[in-house]
Amino acid sequence: MRCLAEFAGSALAIFPLLIVYTLSQLIYQYAGVTPIILVTVLSYGAVAALFGKVSGAQLNPAVTVAAMLTSKTGWIDGIAYIVAQVLGGIAAAALYTIVLPTSENVTGQMWFTVVVNGFDDASRSSSALSGAGISFGVMLAVAVELIAGLIVVGAAVSTLREDGTADSSHAWATAVAYGLGAALTYPVTGAALNPARATGVAIMAHGKGLTVEPLSQLWVFWIAPVFAAALVAVAMIANQMVAAAAAKTSA
Amino acid sequence: MRCLAEFAGSALAIFPLLIVYTLSQLIYQYAGVTPIILVTVLSYGAVAALFGKVSGAQLNPAVTVAAMLTSKTGWIDGIAYIVAQVLGGIAAAALYTIVLPTSENVTGQMWFTVVVNGFDDASRSSSALSGAGISFGVMLAVAVELIAGLIVVGAAVSTLREDGTADSSHAWATAVAYGLGAALTYPVTGAALNPARATGVAIMAHGKGLTVEPLSQLWVFWIAPVFAAALVAVAMIANQMVAAAAAKTSA
Amino acid sequence: MRCLAEFAGSALAIFPLLIVYTLSQLIYQYAGVTPIILVTVLSYGAVAALFGKVSGAQLNPAVTVAAMLTSKTGWIDGIAYIVAQVLGGIAAAALYTIVLPTSENVTGQMWFTVVVNGFDDASRSSSALSGAGISFGVMLAVAVELIAGLIVVGAAVSTLREDGTADSSHAWATAVAYGLGAALTYPVTGAALNPARATGVAIMAHGKGLTVEPLSQLWVFWIAPVFAAALVAVAMIANQMVAAAAAKTSA
Amino acid sequence: MRCLAEFAGSALAIFPLLIVYTLSQLIYQYAGVTPIILVTVLSYGAVAALFGKVSGAQLNPAVTVAAMLTSKTGWIDGIAYIVAQVLGGIAAAALYTIVLPTSENVTGQMWFTVVVNGFDDASRSSSALSGAGISFGVMLAVAVELIAGLIVVGAAVSTLREDGTADSSHAWATAVAYGLGAALTYPVTGAALNPARATGVAIMAHGKGLTVEPLSQLWVFWIAPVFAAALVAVAMIANQMVAAAAAKTSA
Repeated sequence: MRCLAEFAGSALAIFPLLIVYTLSQLIYQYAGVTPIILVTVLSYGAVAALFGKVSGAQLNPAVTVAAMLTSKTGWIDGIAYIVAQVLGGIAAAALYTIVLPTSENVTGQMWFTVVVNGFDDASRSSSALSGAGISFGVMLAVAVELIAGLIVVGAAVSTLREDGTADSSHAWATAVAYGLGAALTYPVTGAALNPARATGVAIMAHGKGLTVEPLSQLWVFWIAPVFAAALVAVAMIANQMVAAAAAKTSA
Repeated sequence: MRCLAEFAGSALAIFPLLIVYTLSQLIYQYAGVTPIILVTVLSYGAVAALFGKVSGAQLNPAVTVAAMLTSKTGWIDGIAYIVAQVLGGIAAAALYTIVLPTSENVTGQMWFTVVVNGFDDASRSSSALSGAGISFGVMLAVAVELIAGLIVVGAAVSTLREDGTADSSHAWATAVAYGLGAALTYPVTGAALNPARATGVAIMAHGKGLTVEPLSQLWVFWIAPVFAAALVAVAMIANQMVAAAAAKTSA
Repeated sequence: MRCLAEFAGSALAIFPLLIVYTLSQLIYQYAGVTPIILVTVLSYGAVAALFGKVSGAQLNPAVTVAAMLTSKTGWIDGIAYIVAQVLGGIAAAALYTIVLPTSENVTGQMWFTVVVNGFDDASRSSSALSGAGISFGVMLAVAVELIAGLIVVGAAVSTLREDGTADSSHAWATAVAYGLGAALTYPVTGAALNPARATGVAIMAHGKGLTVEPLSQLWVFWIAPVFAAALVAVAMIANQMVAAAAAKTSA
Repeated sequence: MRCLAEFAGSALAIFPLLIVYTLSQLIYQYAGVTPIILVTVLSYGAVAALFGKVSGAQLNPAVTVAAMLTSKTGWIDGIAYIVAQVLGGIAAAALYTIVLPTSENVTGQMWFTVVVNGFDDASRSSSALSGAGISFGVMLAVAVELIAGLIVVGAAVSTLREDGTADSSHAWATAVAYGLGAALTYPVTGAALNPARATGVAIMAHGKGLTVEPLSQLWVFWIAPVFAAALVAVAMIANQMVAAAAAKTSA
């Protein structure tokens, strides 16, 4: 039941992101990054509230890695969660592919261009920057996804109980953290934030003729958040050890 | 008193939506979908907070259907709530018709064009898409309204107590879910989300000479959310049965 | 001390509104009503959180009228609060006048044009509508300010304790309600919502050569919210009586 | 550990602000001040939630001054916090300098122009105002930063416990207050709000050839918030003395 919740939750959180990122970019271009921030806050917030009591609404392999490292989620459960999350991401991207209409002028390639995660020529700002002689490359992409990952994973894991389910502030903290992450990363990478989201889109966009094949850049969107998860886990464990030592000293 | 609360709450939640959807579209067009998202969050959030302790602030026939299926609201109460909600939607649309000024150039048809819910030629994006050879048809409309319905009904019903009144997180969860639903559905259908809202506007816009007669597409805005309500009810009952079985096994 | 809190709170809530309404209109015009909504949410939310424990952070004569009618605030206290709130509104408008620079091209009249509350030729949308042969007149102004007043006063008073101080949801409910009110009323009246705010600006803008003398339209921004306050008080008292009768019957 | 939390928290809160202020200004210019407000709410909200239990997430020398004056933080701890916060601000600005790409056309000067805090020719609105014969000078800069400081410091300090750690409403109150402060000050000063943020950027932008050397205007962004902190501390102490006197009288 908890794996089903992670699958359904990931799909339900990611599908609206893909649709809204696409349409706000193509139809309401003047509004800029604002609808991107808002829908990310609302999507992860709503889904974390819905599934928090069932599975902890981890929704993100990086969050689950940190939950495993801090012993809030067991290793077998954690691996099953990650599989469920990635399948949820693929399901969301597949549904996105099915429901958006195409024509001679509007191809699947066009829809995917605005939702794949990437850098350099695949950065969301690449056309805006093309005349300026610069590009948003792998270093900036890693920097923003790593810092966003620290905030997202930190917020999500620090609001899980010892048994891996959500405490009462989990939905709120998750929503705020993903919204901040989207603001920080969207102009650079298109806001991956979640390896399950990046993977689902990269798989469905494979072979659609995008300028940059998204699977070739996917590694960044796994390495950066998982490394962030490791840093968060180390910080949480160190903080607990210091607190325990302080308690022992004062006792 | 509770039916009165559902009537007044539905009217008070829906009237600001109609006015703001209209004026932000016609006067602040560059702002795009952002004010739509914000006013939807604020409107359902404020009204759910005001009436949650009285009637549960269900405000939406699909929410009430799910509340009846999960035995949180009795069948007689539920049907009375639905009637009250639809009357509230009609009252909001009627007040909208009365207060907005018209002239030779600015007709009632023009005002209603931006608030009716529809698809194909009645989609909110139909003019933006007209040159591209595609349209947002019934399949995409059903997909986004159904997924938005899952989130809205799930958020609203899972935060009702056993007696159908709101728990302390009801207003917050409702606000976030409707905001996400508006972001997801507005570019396609004009964000119905609530059969009472779609019905009120469709009735008042009837015979005003719109390109597509809104009553002819209204079925989508009942079928999709009510089907979502049934799915939510099944998921909640299944989750309870699994939890009960697990409790029995471990006992 | 509580009157001082109402004075300081009203001034601190209203001054940012005046500055942000002005600058977002004159410098960031494409952003439309979005910054107006956000700053209204944040301003009343922050100030209600700061002063809620001291005086209830009523901040608005209409809220205080409803608090007096429902016996949450005594009559003498209430009148002193209203005087303090209006003085706070005047102080905010005076500080606004002092700090904004003027020149031959940029006169005080220009600054005030975008923050006075009005209708017809003084409506915020009057220039946008001028070519269309319609105007947003007194009926629409009363309708939107009255409905916004119901929501604002309802949210603020229903979250006051019996002794007139704020309960834990007061700041949140107030913030959401004023934000919704701003979304609903800004394109019509410039979002008065609070007689203290409308009065402060109207007094300071008096004799500055505006197209419509703001004091001549000020009555609407007292009558509508105070009438809303009376309706809210009647609804709250009726609800209590019904609940009490139900309790007696079941006993 | 608490100083480390103040250092890491300040850097994590400030780095996203710098990146998002820059990119939303240069890439999404039509969106205006909206993304600025949102990212400020989300950044301080997320970081205050992450570090509130460790160090109180004061994150701002002005907040720490008020916490020292009201005896919530000791003097030695407080000075260490301030040093940690300023180092965090410098680290954020240094990382900003490292990760943003430059070319012949896009220099470091260009990136810094949109994030330094200043007034007169360094005001964020100076180019918009240049044709109008006015400028946003030191008086307006002090006025908006002082009033924003009252709200930010008031919100942050009144939600600290007696031992200087955060209570359950600290993150929410902090987020709302900084968001309001950003809305109020961004068009004038570029939204300093926090001496650590202004100092970090001013140091890293030193000698980059900006029109106005940012270190020459930095005093405003220390004086205004620290004076606000003193006013908040006086108000909190006066309020406690009045409450204590009232308790004695009624006893």
